[in-house]
Formats: sequence, structure tokens, C-alpha cells
Amino acid sequence: MNNYKNILNICGKILKVEAVLMLIPLIIAIVYKEEYSTTIMGFSITIIIEFLCGVLLNIKKTKNHRILPRESFIIVTFSWILVSFFGCLPLVISREIPNFFDAFFEMCSGFTTTGATIIQDVEVIKHSILFWRSFSHWIGGMGVIVFILAILPDNKEGSNMHILRAESPGPQVGKLTTRISVTARILYLIYVVLTVIEILILYLGPDKKMDLFSSVTLSLGTAGTGGFSVLNDSIASYAPFSQYVIAIFMILFGINFTLFYMILIGKFKTAIKNEELGIYLSLIFVSVLIITITLNINKVYPGFEECFRHALFQVASIISTTGYATTDYVGQFPWPTICYMIIIFLMFTGPCAGSTGGGIKISRISILFKSAIRKIKQMVSPRKIEPLKVSGALIEEDVIQGAESFFVLYIMILFFATFLISFDGKDLLTNFTASLSCISNIGPGLGNIVGPAGNFSSFSSFSKFVLSLTMITGRLELFPILTLFNYKTWKPR
Amino acid sequence: MNNYKNILNICGKILKVEAVLMLIPLIIAIVYKEEYSTTIMGFSITIIIEFLCGVLLNIKKTKNHRILPRESFIIVTFSWILVSFFGCLPLVISREIPNFFDAFFEMCSGFTTTGATIIQDVEVIKHSILFWRSFSHWIGGMGVIVFILAILPDNKEGSNMHILRAESPGPQVGKLTTRISVTARILYLIYVVLTVIEILILYLGPDKKMDLFSSVTLSLGTAGTGGFSVLNDSIASYAPFSQYVIAIFMILFGINFTLFYMILIGKFKTAIKNEELGIYLSLIFVSVLIITITLNINKVYPGFEECFRHALFQVASIISTTGYATTDYVGQFPWPTICYMIIIFLMFTGPCAGSTGGGIKISRISILFKSAIRKIKQMVSPRKIEPLKVSGALIEEDVIQGAESFFVLYIMILFFATFLISFDGKDLLTNFTASLSCISNIGPGLGNIVGPAGNFSSFSSFSKFVLSLTMITGRLELFPILTLFNYKTWKPR
Repeated sequence: MNNYKNILNICGKILKVEAVLMLIPLIIAIVYKEEYSTTIMGFSITIIIEFLCGVLLNIKKTKNHRILPRESFIIVTFSWILVSFFGCLPLVISREIPNFFDAFFEMCSGFTTTGATIIQDVEVIKHSILFWRSFSHWIGGMGVIVFILAILPDNKEGSNMHILRAESPGPQVGKLTTRISVTARILYLIYVVLTVIEILILYLGPDKKMDLFSSVTLSLGTAGTGGFSVLNDSIASYAPFSQYVIAIFMILFGINFTLFYMILIGKFKTAIKNEELGIYLSLIFVSVLIITITLNINKVYPGFEECFRHALFQVASIISTTGYATTDYVGQFPWPTICYMIIIFLMFTGPCAGSTGGGIKISRISILFKSAIRKIKQMVSPRKIEPLKVSGALIEEDVIQGAESFFVLYIMILFFATFLISFDGKDLLTNFTASLSCISNIGPGLGNIVGPAGNFSSFSSFSKFVLSLTMITGRLELFPILTLFNYKTWKPR
Repeated sequence: MNNYKNILNICGKILKVEAVLMLIPLIIAIVYKEEYSTTIMGFSITIIIEFLCGVLLNIKKTKNHRILPRESFIIVTFSWILVSFFGCLPLVISREIPNFFDAFFEMCSGFTTTGATIIQDVEVIKHSILFWRSFSHWIGGMGVIVFILAILPDNKEGSNMHILRAESPGPQVGKLTTRISVTARILYLIYVVLTVIEILILYLGPDKKMDLFSSVTLSLGTAGTGGFSVLNDSIASYAPFSQYVIAIFMILFGINFTLFYMILIGKFKTAIKNEELGIYLSLIFVSVLIITITLNINKVYPGFEECFRHALFQVASIISTTGYATTDYVGQFPWPTICYMIIIFLMFTGPCAGSTGGGIKISRISILFKSAIRKIKQMVSPRKIEPLKVSGALIEEDVIQGAESFFVLYIMILFFATFLISFDGKDLLTNFTASLSCISNIGPGLGNIVGPAGNFSSFSSFSKFVLSLTMITGRLELFPILTLFNYKTWKPR
């Protein structure tokens, strides 16, 4: 039973780290002079309970730190659920979001960088809670456990790799350097630097509405490709300057972080020639082009600049799975159906693997597409077996099969989630896009209820819980959670 | 260039056969004393032109009858398009459906056994045309080319097998007997006998509205899992007796025909133990159960019997991809959303492979599901490689990969078709379910426009053409048409 101790140990460490991180919103609560009985109490109590739980789980130390792949799935799933559970306690205790299922949904949405909210009026929520929501995007964006790996010393090589693999987005895990914690630290450094740059540009820009609090929270949300805003109309009332800046940073945070590292160490050409990046940028270009033209023809907005800006922002927001919006494209300014089709398509693809975004990931879609083309070629010339290449590198059959199983499971889970929330009696489009939005970690769906100006408050507690789990399943790229249903995962060594 | 002669030869034979088959609606036109200037002219002119074209294509005989797999794809695709093209000429010439794209859509829908119609008032259409529509279901149900194989003498073994494989539904082609034409004839015999039994039961039953014409056309539509009706409200105004009979026959025609053959030759146990059949019947049972309960709780219909009957009929109609309806479940009697979810799910699965139905087929869904489960198991125990079994028989990796590619392409084409018809500006649900209905060869979609009481007349000619091709792509199970986009398919030997 040594492995269970190991699992509990790591979960304990994660709880301790979250408790420490919660000191920041606590300080903010104090700075903004929020009432003692509400948020300050909420955060204080949670920090104490959570830290104690962490200590408790860490009492029984293990000597063998080796972790099996199947154990890493348990660790990853449990830590995400635990982090969301403890993360939502301040919301419940402070009575800002008194219902537990609402608060759990909100924090799952935060940590998984979904950005779907059950808050009907976000402008009455206290600053510390708003910050904590956005901060959870930032922590979750890079991965709760990658975060831990970055700050903890390396233990034996290979063990952490399993955890990293279980948590990181995309079909393959790229190894930047041989030591995991070094990799994690480099990625986090890039993440921090980019976030700080965005905060500075937003804060120092000409937008008067963009105060320090807005620029920090919105930048945290952009970096994690989350999407929680601090105003009810998301980004709509900020100046076009801020909207352009956020759009560009959303696109940046949808790029594979290893490419930034390559550019840093001078491998500019290799980074630029990356196939996934090319498809990603082409998809954005084509989508913005079609939507801008359609909006302009249909005179949805008065000027061309406005059509272009809204098209760019929404495309960047959806493909990066952030979920901010600058316009209510389903309610006040309904877009033509063809634009919705593009949005739904981008909701499936998501951005590049190895970014902070969700969705199926472009590299997987690309592998699926190439594999399908290869199958067609094989039917015409049965004797010829062609290898599959991405960016010039051979893709192993195992990875192709993984991508195909992933796609099948993605559609199945999406369908199952839609089915389960259908019991609420809402319309099909709402149920489908809400589930798609949650599994792809985007935020808004289509239709008036869950659209960019809507929220998830009208769902039943059962549906909220289903969608919460859907978000975590999507964020962990399905397999870690699904393996928990195989009894062998739980077998002691 | 010998192979092109071969292709043209076979297409010529098919045209001649269709011309001969068209004599039946011509006779019906004469029997019902329809105007000479309309339908009688329409069929006569088409028969002459088509037969001449057939003779023309058959002038240059070939000596080498061997057909390569890639050539069989060309033959199959072209013959389906040609058959639909010539089949729609009587509709255009008789001015019953004057617009070519409408008529082409209607006959594609007929031959692919979809049953989606552009006719707004079917009760004013002449009997000969109504019969031809339903007859096309019957011909298309078993496969245009299987039909030819059944009546033509065998040529060299292996060549026809490629054609059969390119056209037959399901992931694998079962060989009943070693000679193809014998197989085809046995299947057709079962098909004919079942159809005749249904006609007799319907005609001799207590339903006074069910005259000979109705029982024949509706039985042809049931057998082919088509769905064209002769009344505007589909099957709604027939007596419950007829509705139950049609429901049961729809379920029967969704079963793999080789199972009927096995029962015939006394292998009853093997047939009953068939895994796909078990899943098929379970799916029907569970779906009917959930829908009946939901309808009864929500008091959509006054009595329990009515709830059960409509649930049974609609489930049988959708899973078998027939498309008849006994109630307007989206308009007059809107069903709860959960029922729609079940309908959409059944629209994807379709019935058993080797039946006359469309959709992805249960055996493929089953392989996909098992493969996904296996992948999850592999992640937990990486060293163990388990073989995949269906009905106790090993499934080759090639078949699994084929099913996965099929699924990916299915979703992609469904998405692409939905995208293309979105330019019409209709709502998402209409576009999506219309495309799904067409690729799965069902007939009605959801929403008021293309629902069971609606029709496809309001789509643009472009969209109608896209949906026509989608139907053929779905009926031929994607690959034959897709291979035409590979230039190597067209390479002379």
C-alpha cells in the first residue's frame, strides 16, 4: 500500500501550496477593506483548514517516490477536484456564492480555465473573490501540478514525467530539457513574463476604464485562457485599444509554449516552421476574414473597423478557449448562422497543444485529418503504407491511435454530458453548446441562456455538477479521469 | 484504357436495368389513367433516352472483366449519381417537380433511402410518381449494384466482390456463399418475401384507410428504410394497427440480412447470439422505455398506449433510418428535450450493418467503443495488448482503424455539409439535423422546418445539391466518393 501514501503525500503538498496561494486574495480583501465577516473570514478559515489537511496528508512519509503511470492519473484527477473543492470554500463561507454546487462549478470553471460562470451580476461581487477567480485561471492554465513541479525539487527522474504527461495538453509531451522541474520552471518563467507584459500594456495604455485591478485580473484570465471578467458585459465596455491588446495576447497564449522557448534560445526558424502554429494562424486568419466580410455585408455593426475588431476578438477568444467577449453575438447583435458554424468549429479545435488552452487541440485534429486522408489513399493503393508526418517528423502509430480514441471519447463524453443536462428541459442548442463549452474549457456557449451575455445560473445543481466534472475531464484531456473507472488503476502494487 | 471501357460497360448495364424498371411506374400511370402529356410522357421519354444511353455505353465491349478496387469506387459512385439523374427526369418532364435540383434531391433521397422530401403537398402528386419514389427506396435499399449482381451472371470471382464491398453497409462484408450472384440472389429473395408479407398484412388488416396503393408504397418504403409517404402527415392518419405493423417491419429491416439467412438454414442460435442484434434490440428497448415514460409523465398524449405507440414507432423509424412519423414531435406535440437527445443519438448509430438502413451502424459504434475502452485499459496497464472481439470473433486492427477513420470522416463531412448549407441563413438546429438526417439517410430532422411535418423545399438549390451529394456519400459509406478526390483513382492501368 506504499503507493497510496505516495498519492496522499502529493495531494497534501498541493493543498498546502493552494493554502499559501490563497494568502494573496486574503491580502486583497484586507487592502480593499472588505467586511471581516465575509471574504476575510472566508479566506482565513479555508487557508487554515486546507493547510491542516495538507499537513495531515503529509504526516506519513514514503521512502519510495517512484510513481506508476496509473497512479499519476489518480493524483492528477484528485488534485484537480480537491483544489476546486477547497478553492470554492471561501465563496461559500463569505456567502458571495452561498450554494455549494454553484461555488464548486465556479471554481472548477476557474481552475480548468473554462470561464463559464453562474454569477448573474458579477459587478456586485467583492474584489478578493473576483481576483481569486481570475487567479485560479492563471494557476490552472499552466497546470496545478506543473506548478508544483516548478517549485518542488526534482525527485527521481521519470516519476514526475508521468504526472506531467497525464496533465499536459496535446497528443505528445515535448521534453525541453532533461530535468522536469527545469522544464516546468522555464515554461512558468515565459508564462509570468508574458502575463506581466500584458498587465503593463493594458495598465499603461490609453484606456481610462482599465484600472490596475482590471488589468491584472483580465491579464490573469488571458494568460490562463480562462475568461472570467469583472464586468457584466465581459470586455465590451473597455476601449478598442484594450480589446486589441487582449485579442493579441489570447492568440499568443494559444501557442505552444515550447515555441517561445525555442525563440528564446535562438531557434527562430524551427519555431516559425512549426506546422501546428501555421495551421493555428491560418485558421484565425480565415475565420476572421469570413466573419468580418459576413458581418460587414449584413451590417451587423456600423463600421468596417468594428466588424473586424469583433471578428478578431471573438475568433481569438474562442480558438484560444478563453471565452471573453466584446459583443453579445447571440442576443443584441445576432451574427449570421455561418459565423456560428465557424465558432462551433473553433470550439472543437481549440489552440495549439502545449498551450494553456483547451479543446481537442489543432495537432490532434491535424493527425486525425492526415490519418483519414491516408486511409483513403490506402483504399486506392492497398499495398502502399505511408508513414504520417507532422512538421517533418514521423508520428508513431500509437500516437495516431491515441488521437483517434481521444476524438471518439471526446464526442461520446460531449454527447453524454449534453444528454444528462437535457433533463433540465432547456433547448438542444443551449445544452449542446454548454457541454461543448465546458469540455473544451471555453466559457460561453450559443443561445441566449449560455451565450456571451448569459450565464449558467439557471441550470439545476445536478447539471452544474455534471458540467463541473465535464470541465475537469476536458482539462485533463479525458484519459486520467476515465482510467479511474478501470478497477486495475486502484490495484495496490 | 481498358478499364474505362469496363466502367462504362457496367454503367451502361445499370442504365438499361433502370429503364426497364421504370416500365412499372409507366404501367401504373396508364392504369390510373393519368394525363398523357404529363407522367406517361415523362416516363416514356426517360425510358427511351436512358435505354439508348445504356446501349451506347455498351457498344464497345471489353474482354478483360477484372475490376480493381479503385475502379469499383468510380463505378459505384457514378452509377448512384446516374441512376438518380435519370430517375429524376420523369419528375421534371411531367412537371410534377419542375425544378431540376428539387427533382434530383427527391430521387437521391429516394435511391439512398433517405426519404427527405422537397414536396410541400404530397397528396396532389400523381400515383405513378409516388410509386416511383417509393420504388426507388426499395431498389436503393438493397443497393443499386447488388441488384444488378443478383440478376446478371457471375463474371470472374473477385471482381464483383470489390463492387459489393464498395457498396455494402457496415465495416465488414460477410460472405454468405462463395459465389457473389448467389449471395445477392439469396439476400434479394429474403428482401422480396419480407416486403410481400408486409404488403399482405397491411392490406388485409383492419385499417380501412390502407388501400392496395398505400400498402404497396409504404411497404416498399419500409423495406428500403426509406420513408417517403403518400400522405402529408406521413403515417399519422393510418390506424394504430398499421402503425404497429410498420414499426415492427422497420425494426426487422434494420437487422443484418445474413441473420435471416442463418435462421432460414437452421442456424438459429448463431443468429440469436449475434452481438450487434443484441445491442440493436437493447437500444430500441431502452429508448422506447425512456421516451414512453417521459411522454407519459409530461402528458404529451392523453393515454399510455398512445405514448408507447408513438415512442415505439418513432424510435423504430429513426434507428432503422426510415423516417416515417406518426406524430409531429417537434410542432403540434413537442417532445421534451431528453427525447430529442435520444433521437439524435439514434440518428448517429443507425441500425445493424448489412441491413438496408444508413447511419454509422451499430457494429461500428461498438468497435469504436471497445477500442476506446481498450485504449483506457492500455494506459493503465501499458504492457498488455488485448485483442478486440465482437460476437466472440477477433476483429483485425485494420477494421478498427477503418471504423475510426470512418467516424472521423463522418463527423467532418457532417460538419462540412452543415457549414455549406448555413449560407442559407437557417438556424443551427435545422442545418445540423438536416445534414445529419441526410448523411445518415433518415429523412426528417428536428426543428419546424425539416421536422417530421416539414420538408426541405425552403433550402436554396445550392443547399439541395449539397444535401443530395451528402445523401449519396452517406449511403455509400463515405469512402467510395472520397477516393475520387485522390488522383491515383483515375490513373489508367
